[in-house]
Amino acid sequence: MVWSNNCLKLLDQTLLPGQVEYIYCHSWERIAEAIKKLEVRGAPAIGAAAAFAMVFGAREAAAANSWNAFKTALLSVSKQLAQTRPTAVNLFWALKRMEEVVERFDENSSPGEVLTALEQEAIAIAEEDKAVNQKISKYGASLFTAPQAVLTHCNAGALATVALGTALGVIREAKAQGNITKVFVDETRPLLQGARLTAWELHQDGIPVTLITDNTAGWVMKNKMVQSVIVGADRIARNGDVANKIGTYSVAVLAREHGIPFYVAAPVSTFDFSIKTGNDIPIEERCANEVKSFGGCCIAPEGISVFNPAFDVTLNSLVTAIITEHGVLRAPYEQAIEKLYQISKKSK
Amino acid sequence: MVWSNNCLKLLDQTLLPGQVEYIYCHSWERIAEAIKKLEVRGAPAIGAAAAFAMVFGAREAAAANSWNAFKTALLSVSKQLAQTRPTAVNLFWALKRMEEVVERFDENSSPGEVLTALEQEAIAIAEEDKAVNQKISKYGASLFTAPQAVLTHCNAGALATVALGTALGVIREAKAQGNITKVFVDETRPLLQGARLTAWELHQDGIPVTLITDNTAGWVMKNKMVQSVIVGADRIARNGDVANKIGTYSVAVLAREHGIPFYVAAPVSTFDFSIKTGNDIPIEERCANEVKSFGGCCIAPEGISVFNPAFDVTLNSLVTAIITEHGVLRAPYEQAIEKLYQISKKSK
Repeated sequence: MVWSNNCLKLLDQTLLPGQVEYIYCHSWERIAEAIKKLEVRGAPAIGAAAAFAMVFGAREAAAANSWNAFKTALLSVSKQLAQTRPTAVNLFWALKRMEEVVERFDENSSPGEVLTALEQEAIAIAEEDKAVNQKISKYGASLFTAPQAVLTHCNAGALATVALGTALGVIREAKAQGNITKVFVDETRPLLQGARLTAWELHQDGIPVTLITDNTAGWVMKNKMVQSVIVGADRIARNGDVANKIGTYSVAVLAREHGIPFYVAAPVSTFDFSIKTGNDIPIEERCANEVKSFGGCCIAPEGISVFNPAFDVTLNSLVTAIITEHGVLRAPYEQAIEKLYQISKKSK
Repeated sequence: MVWSNNCLKLLDQTLLPGQVEYIYCHSWERIAEAIKKLEVRGAPAIGAAAAFAMVFGAREAAAANSWNAFKTALLSVSKQLAQTRPTAVNLFWALKRMEEVVERFDENSSPGEVLTALEQEAIAIAEEDKAVNQKISKYGASLFTAPQAVLTHCNAGALATVALGTALGVIREAKAQGNITKVFVDETRPLLQGARLTAWELHQDGIPVTLITDNTAGWVMKNKMVQSVIVGADRIARNGDVANKIGTYSVAVLAREHGIPFYVAAPVSTFDFSIKTGNDIPIEERCANEVKSFGGCCIAPEGISVFNPAFDVTLNSLVTAIITEHGVLRAPYEQAIEKLYQISKKSK
């Protein structure tokens, strides 16, 4: 995503890989719509986009004739943005950072000052995400010490973040170091983020991709065609339970069955320090049509039920390591994440 | 499938659930094409269709001017039919049965006599399949002793057999006995036999269906939404290893992880008594376009690789029981299948 001239430019991810088209957002409502429609998706990207939405929201709220009215209007925007998607915690994290900026000011502040500070914070959130992903990539690549094939699920790439990606950032760096021979990409039904986005991103970078159906991941592992798995995350609980795209849990069980390391790459902003376990993570259920139809074709009979959760939770016991910008966490995760929490509080 | 007036009528399974259209086959080549294109699919259905193809092949071969020339011509047809698909053993089993009919005759037999015997054998194969599925359904239903939700993968139903189905036959019978509350159907990428065929079949019978993506099976198990799994098979080795639709292996691993019984329903004709283990089962790889495109839409970037095996092999250690027309087999499978082999030899 690019912020310039008071416009947030987003690559429309619903049209990839067929069409490369951009959305030019000039209002918080348009960004909220983009998040809802998955035109922008991926936990860190949603966070950054929501921060820019708050900039637009604040400009609108600045028309209010008192400081309290301004704050009330902006908090209402924040609340509406928070309702766009329930699972990725980066959304709430970014909104909270933006709200905290407002708290630094009061009725004696000039509106221009507040608006500038909010824009600077949104830019900082985006810039930090790039830097964070570079660190994650370096730490993650250190886990790949010999040439190997890796499997990934969904898209935790440049498209899911501000730049580089988390899981795909690690893959890019490990590839640069000569330790990735091939990337198996789960297509990731129902919305095919693997086939449409991850395969596209990696192929553009000249990294060898082999696309498989989600059904094929277990067989690829069984046949020793892959030596590691790496995915991103939408929310990580204090005990290391990981919410990520539906199907991640199955991949993690299969990886353990085959003695294959299962890595999660995610920034601190994806950790929800307020919840103890994955049981407390709300799982978004999406509409039946995502499963029942495809490209306008109906692929299932009318009248049947569909269960379409967008995410699942992988238990911490299945996670070999969590790669963050502050280093690689390993079990026991309660302790490792407590340390991370202390670091993240200090760096504020 | 229906055989009447020297025509094999097949429901075109590639068009379901959108269109219910029939194919009227008047030659072995058309049946071979239907098998190759998956217009007819499912191990028992392929076997029966191939038997009728041999009837057409024999009529064509009967134009030969000697017994040997007739046999050579018919064996050539059999060979070509055998090359339509490599994994489902029922195909080879049915062709062998048809070849054995020819062996009962010699140069002194009248062509009419041979052709009639071949047609009778093909009809017998089809009729037996119906009776076999009824037995499998009864034996299988005895495993469902309390109301429960069951999960199935791909289509092992009436569409995959001559009638009733294997796994879906069991589900139908268990439902009639009041012990099925709901069927979770994996959509079964890439060709969506679950979404298109199984959901359609069960919904037509008024059995409650909940369609899920293949990615969701593990999460459904984790959340205790399902109490058993039942699938069909394309080939079963002498040690009980089961080749079935790609993704079956993953489902079996997930079922064991969650302490859920994993049942396989298959007739004796699906057992390959000539091979020791699943390692000897040839796995068909199908074209990349099945994964890269969908309903005419391209869903993946040009230029990437695809790995698209149509089947996988589930190790016998993951199989709770195999339901056959001669009863329910349990581990140790080598012994149970040896007994089945003796029974099948006697009943010839």
